[in-house]
Amino acid sequence: MFESAELGRTVDKKTYAAREARLRVDLLKAQHELAATKVRLLVLVGGVEGGGKTEVARRLVDWLDARGLNVEAYGDRSDEIDERPEYWRYWTTLPAAGRGAILLGAWYTKPIVRRALKEDGEGRFERALDRAAAFEAMLTREDTALVKLWLHLSKKDQRRRLRELEEDPATAWRVSKRDWDFARKYDRFRGVCERALARSGTVDAPWTVIDAMDRRWRNLAAGEAVLAALKAGLARARASAAANVPDRPKPPKVSVLTRLDMAKALDEHDYARKLDKQQARVAELTRRLRKDRRALICAFEGVDAAGKGGAIRRLLSAIDARNARVMAVAAPTDEERAHPYLWRFWRHLPRLGRTTIYDRTWYGRVLVERVEGFCSQADWKRAYGEISAFEEELSESGIVVCKFWLQISSEEQLKRFQDRVKTPFKQYKITDEDWRNRGKWDAYQAAAVEMIEKTSTPDAPWTLVEAQDKKWARVKVLKTVADRLEEELG
Amino acid sequence: MFESAELGRTVDKKTYAAREARLRVDLLKAQHELAATKVRLLVLVGGVEGGGKTEVARRLVDWLDARGLNVEAYGDRSDEIDERPEYWRYWTTLPAAGRGAILLGAWYTKPIVRRALKEDGEGRFERALDRAAAFEAMLTREDTALVKLWLHLSKKDQRRRLRELEEDPATAWRVSKRDWDFARKYDRFRGVCERALARSGTVDAPWTVIDAMDRRWRNLAAGEAVLAALKAGLARARASAAANVPDRPKPPKVSVLTRLDMAKALDEHDYARKLDKQQARVAELTRRLRKDRRALICAFEGVDAAGKGGAIRRLLSAIDARNARVMAVAAPTDEERAHPYLWRFWRHLPRLGRTTIYDRTWYGRVLVERVEGFCSQADWKRAYGEISAFEEELSESGIVVCKFWLQISSEEQLKRFQDRVKTPFKQYKITDEDWRNRGKWDAYQAAAVEMIEKTSTPDAPWTLVEAQDKKWARVKVLKTVADRLEEELG
Repeated sequence: MFESAELGRTVDKKTYAAREARLRVDLLKAQHELAATKVRLLVLVGGVEGGGKTEVARRLVDWLDARGLNVEAYGDRSDEIDERPEYWRYWTTLPAAGRGAILLGAWYTKPIVRRALKEDGEGRFERALDRAAAFEAMLTREDTALVKLWLHLSKKDQRRRLRELEEDPATAWRVSKRDWDFARKYDRFRGVCERALARSGTVDAPWTVIDAMDRRWRNLAAGEAVLAALKAGLARARASAAANVPDRPKPPKVSVLTRLDMAKALDEHDYARKLDKQQARVAELTRRLRKDRRALICAFEGVDAAGKGGAIRRLLSAIDARNARVMAVAAPTDEERAHPYLWRFWRHLPRLGRTTIYDRTWYGRVLVERVEGFCSQADWKRAYGEISAFEEELSESGIVVCKFWLQISSEEQLKRFQDRVKTPFKQYKITDEDWRNRGKWDAYQAAAVEMIEKTSTPDAPWTLVEAQDKKWARVKVLKTVADRLEEELG
Repeated sequence: MFESAELGRTVDKKTYAAREARLRVDLLKAQHELAATKVRLLVLVGGVEGGGKTEVARRLVDWLDARGLNVEAYGDRSDEIDERPEYWRYWTTLPAAGRGAILLGAWYTKPIVRRALKEDGEGRFERALDRAAAFEAMLTREDTALVKLWLHLSKKDQRRRLRELEEDPATAWRVSKRDWDFARKYDRFRGVCERALARSGTVDAPWTVIDAMDRRWRNLAAGEAVLAALKAGLARARASAAANVPDRPKPPKVSVLTRLDMAKALDEHDYARKLDKQQARVAELTRRLRKDRRALICAFEGVDAAGKGGAIRRLLSAIDARNARVMAVAAPTDEERAHPYLWRFWRHLPRLGRTTIYDRTWYGRVLVERVEGFCSQADWKRAYGEISAFEEELSESGIVVCKFWLQISSEEQLKRFQDRVKTPFKQYKITDEDWRNRGKWDAYQAAAVEMIEKTSTPDAPWTLVEAQDKKWARVKVLKTVADRLEEELG
């Protein structure tokens, strides 16, 4: 993998000046054309110590228009970062459509270093690379021109470069003890990097390995790779996307939803008693979240008028108001539309100790977006896997994920709609869209069945709630949350 | 101030039930009407320990639609917060237009506690209250329905309440040692709170002091105050705002801008030498920011084609790419439009150790927004004071603020425009709007002169840059930054 980056290629000063001048014009032009599209540029710069990741970033920022281009070094930690899933920092620094970012090291640094230092075994290393590959696959499918540069130095060249930097007073500060530590373990790092690159270099997101000893060669190679990515991004933005087609699947005769016992109900007295009991459990258990360094996410889906709002209110009032938040998922803002669809959920993830309740969720992708044709078939089909990966990251980071599907019959929905129309202070709850969606009842049921089947995982199981009786539904939701917390917090 | 909140008023259960039912309907209705407007609801809940701030928040969340209402407790710290100016956390948790938030304690907690514990003197305390008042004045002028509730307990009642909470196993956890410490200093706290309320209760943002001993009385009083605020917000949203009128001031014959010596220039050789020297200084000094727990903001203003981009590039390339960011200020996103105009700048403030360069700035309010009539006369007139307060907060928190006005002549601008039209890779830089703005040259010059005069402060001075010669301008910018840093970092 690295052999062809050890050929000692160089560029002389004159050739460099000429090629640089042309490259700058081309880069600027392509960047400004890209700014008008929905495609973002992501330049991932990895490589060995002394390879010059920061220098390359500076060169690119200088050649391009810095106003549309952030550099993300991910060097600092913060408790905001530490109390979130690992990829939160990558998600929250993702540039908007038309803009770009240069990421130094990013999601490769930690797995490579931990593997080379033998802090991680083979299994963990492979899983980290799989996660990186899945993330990059999602990015490229979500309008990202991704270019991955690897700055390579041979063992001899690395030593030479580090010594060179150390001898110059202007650059000596850049060489740390850690750099030399890593340089001493060159062979081990080389093997690990080689495997990382082999495994994560996919057709959609290949690596460009660059011989980094000659700075001119390195810079031009980096710039030209970025230019190629910009052009590919532009071509992609120009390619007229196939029109999205609404999908109206038919629900199976028998399914997890038809099997629910819709007669389940509670009388007033039982309800009051059980609600009190479960609310007390949730209150006590959620108070323990902070100490245990855990967080809670409760996600609610269901047809209109299924009783999500009422269930959420009972759940919310059991939790310390200072630590709970309800996210009502409505139409995305323009900033949200300028990012991959999961971004709006990532940006609002709870810190440890907190609870976030989602009133409608990321499953909109495989429900409303699928049925109404707001995204392509390819988009919602890949969403099952992306969502499962997302939820896996949540649980791995210590977040307890509870997902509820509230089910009512079509007749019950009609009754509730009519009731809303009649009750003055409920009228705001009912819109034309609710009536239109009702007309697509079967399609929504079918989409829900497929969603439940494809995304129930041990860490993030769906709880199907018989919601014909609101009291039963509310108690079941609270009890499920309490049981899950009890199990998870021990 | 507190006497009328110690009358021991109560509400019996039956009256409460009836009034609560009516209140809920009214609150929900008003909240949903507000959601369609540009007005946000802010409920600040302050008061003594044991007064029930969290209980009141929970009650309000329960009565209202929790999906449009966050509770912000500001209990946790984080290094993200600690490395930003004090009000950053309030700015970044400000709800969008049409939404609401309940803030517990918020900006009053710290000044009151510090003053009561004698950690702060009188002067600091007064300054903190002035800042709070200025912030609230800005909020109410920026479409905020602000309601400030103060939950009061007499000395005797507070002891009674704390003991009551401690004796019930379900609430004992809510009483901390700190609560008792504060209760023992009741008289001192009372005096400080009384002064805080007297000073910060303005016509636009008065306090509602509530006798908090009877929970039913307290909750109803809180709910009714919120309802009144919602209704006032709605009335305000309905009041047809006066149409904004473009303002086209005439520039004075002699001004800080006409006095600039536009003949200042550097030859190629001097330029290269001086640029190198100043870049090296900036490189060295910005590296020290982190260790010294400081940050840097460089703000650039000037007419189109004044050379902001080129100066920014030279400055940027002197700073470690990992620690610098350029914010190009273009049209606000819809999320930004849903917040007060300074919000978009607050959200991108650098952490300690970092540099943010603004290509156009918050001064847009008194330049383009004034001249083009994008805001009302009252809006841009109050902006001078708001901006100075903003910059004062920046410097107080350790951020070095450098502001540059790049000045060229009208003839020079025309020459540069024509050059841009002719040069293929510069064409993207010139738009119809640039030509239109050029037609309002005098008005922009006059607005700039007024801005410079009104917002040059010792902590955030304007540097006027003779930019007729680009080389001179770039070196002057770099030298100014280096000099300021040297002075500030010692």
